Amino acid sequence: MHDLSTRVLAKDVRALARAMRLIDDRAGAYLEILKDLFHRTGNAFVVGVTGNPGAGKSTLCDRLIEDLRAQGKTVGVIAVDPTSPFSGGAILGDRIRMGRHTTDPGVFIRSVATRGHLGGLSRSARDMVRVLDAYGVDVVLVETVGVGQDELEITRTAHTTLVVVAPGMGDEIQAIKAGILECADVFAVNKADRDGADGAVRDLELMIALGNDTMISASKVRGHVVHARTLKVGSAAAGETDDAATGETRWTPPILRCIATRNQGPVEIVRALFEHRAWLEGTEAGRARRKARLAEELRDGLREALIEVATRSLASELENAVRAVDAKELDPYTASEKLIEEFRRGGQ
Amino acid sequence: MHDLSTRVLAKDVRALARAMRLIDDRAGAYLEILKDLFHRTGNAFVVGVTGNPGAGKSTLCDRLIEDLRAQGKTVGVIAVDPTSPFSGGAILGDRIRMGRHTTDPGVFIRSVATRGHLGGLSRSARDMVRVLDAYGVDVVLVETVGVGQDELEITRTAHTTLVVVAPGMGDEIQAIKAGILECADVFAVNKADRDGADGAVRDLELMIALGNDTMISASKVRGHVVHARTLKVGSAAAGETDDAATGETRWTPPILRCIATRNQGPVEIVRALFEHRAWLEGTEAGRARRKARLAEELRDGLREALIEVATRSLASELENAVRAVDAKELDPYTASEKLIEEFRRGGQ
Repeated sequence: MHDLSTRVLAKDVRALARAMRLIDDRAGAYLEILKDLFHRTGNAFVVGVTGNPGAGKSTLCDRLIEDLRAQGKTVGVIAVDPTSPFSGGAILGDRIRMGRHTTDPGVFIRSVATRGHLGGLSRSARDMVRVLDAYGVDVVLVETVGVGQDELEITRTAHTTLVVVAPGMGDEIQAIKAGILECADVFAVNKADRDGADGAVRDLELMIALGNDTMISASKVRGHVVHARTLKVGSAAAGETDDAATGETRWTPPILRCIATRNQGPVEIVRALFEHRAWLEGTEAGRARRKARLAEELRDGLREALIEVATRSLASELENAVRAVDAKELDPYTASEKLIEEFRRGGQ
Repeated sequence: MHDLSTRVLAKDVRALARAMRLIDDRAGAYLEILKDLFHRTGNAFVVGVTGNPGAGKSTLCDRLIEDLRAQGKTVGVIAVDPTSPFSGGAILGDRIRMGRHTTDPGVFIRSVATRGHLGGLSRSARDMVRVLDAYGVDVVLVETVGVGQDELEITRTAHTTLVVVAPGMGDEIQAIKAGILECADVFAVNKADRDGADGAVRDLELMIALGNDTMISASKVRGHVVHARTLKVGSAAAGETDDAATGETRWTPPILRCIATRNQGPVEIVRALFEHRAWLEGTEAGRARRKARLAEELRDGLREALIEVATRSLASELENAVRAVDAKELDPYTASEKLIEEFRRGGQ
């Protein structure tokens, strides 16, 4: 076992920081460390926190950390930052706000920079979560900056995903992208004292009732399909519901109002997150979901590793292929096939 | 040679439609057809048209088609549609507007549905362009719905990319995502009679002058770095400029005002597009760019084909790996390595 791995498992916080840096940079013995630590993972509860910029995610995370700490739980935070150096301002501000927890030895905060590469980022986040998990952190929050496709991808690394929305930011729900319903396990309507909070809750209820994973606003839908709501919204109130079709308990995301700045609601949100965890662990559907996520992770990991290995070992062949295709001596489809054959032959 | 390929090359329009459908569906003999036709491609001028929804892309495309037809050129259009069935309304409207060209035997319009899969979509678009090219179409317009990462990816399949912006849609430039400057060869400021057109032009000039490929608004930048503009914007006026550092002619995207609904500007835009084509073909830098794009395409194609082949041939091994990782008998990193070894051994 690598020395850093041993020290991480012995709860050496400086080793933890170093291991995480290596993993984020994919440098040094990072892979060996990940392999070492994997067998000691599986205890941490990983919560993804996503939502539009300005929804108040960081303030809410701050409050969630407070509540978790009050319960005696240690907390890790992976904050996924965008690349743009210009938008760094707001994000930095958030980090500073959360920074008051940095003096708490039970809280570990680490930023991951968006590298423009989707797969790389969610892999990086997932690997860093693993290190925190092996180190012995009870809960890991993976906080993203927005709700784009990249962020949704990242939330797939979590057991449970909290989606934070706020009223009064234009048509908030409209900005929620395709895939959000698939990934949301708990909704928090933050800034719930503002105008439009009721509307936001209703829109979410409707979205859930429709089970509709679209890019458009629920309020837009409302004009067309009022009936669906009256038919179904009652069953979409909160938590577990009985799915008559499958006989399986199904999870319906609860919608919780909160005012993070006044510390109203975080306790209930934490409770809902743990209820979802219990659902994941206690039901067949929950276990199936965990396994499906693992399969997905393996497929993703295989895909990335495959591309890495192939691009490395085929560098010169690829160059020759470009020349041949450019000269129209070869078509790009046959070129791909030949390169793959070459790659597989190279394995001997 | 496949029968459909022969018929496409013999300018059978029904064979063309069928071949394109097969390719979009990746069905039947699509790969054989692509291989057949590749050697007859390379004559069409492929123009990507991108910009925010509402910028007036479809109306402008309509006008560009008109102008190209007036010059006696045949035109193909690949319209990349989003998946969402709900937003279909507006897009359908656009198609209908452009639909008046469908009675013109010199215009070929084909929609490609966004399938939620990035690579697949740009590959599909690229392959369909190839068929139109082999068929003998002079110009292919690849029109996307928005300016997201997916759309930018798609414009990379084009020789020349036209980015359409419009004033008065909030902070239009702000919405232009990372990567836009890298892909934009010609800018059209549509609805140029509206308030804010001058501002949009200035923002674009500044963005170009800064050479700054960021997600933020040029007007936001303006507050901080006014100097950069006064220093450089003069050289960013239009078309080819002399890059003193390399001695190579460099392309600076011209910014053209237009009012598509009144047919003002399309002629100049078409001219600018062809000027860019001449630059691509006539300069070392242009040729280098074409080759770099080809290399990129081959890498992408290899990547996709590799994943397809590997996922197919490793299906059962992958399932076993998921079971082993779930049972913590194996870590996911070693699992990937073993699967790749397995894949390469399977090539024999």
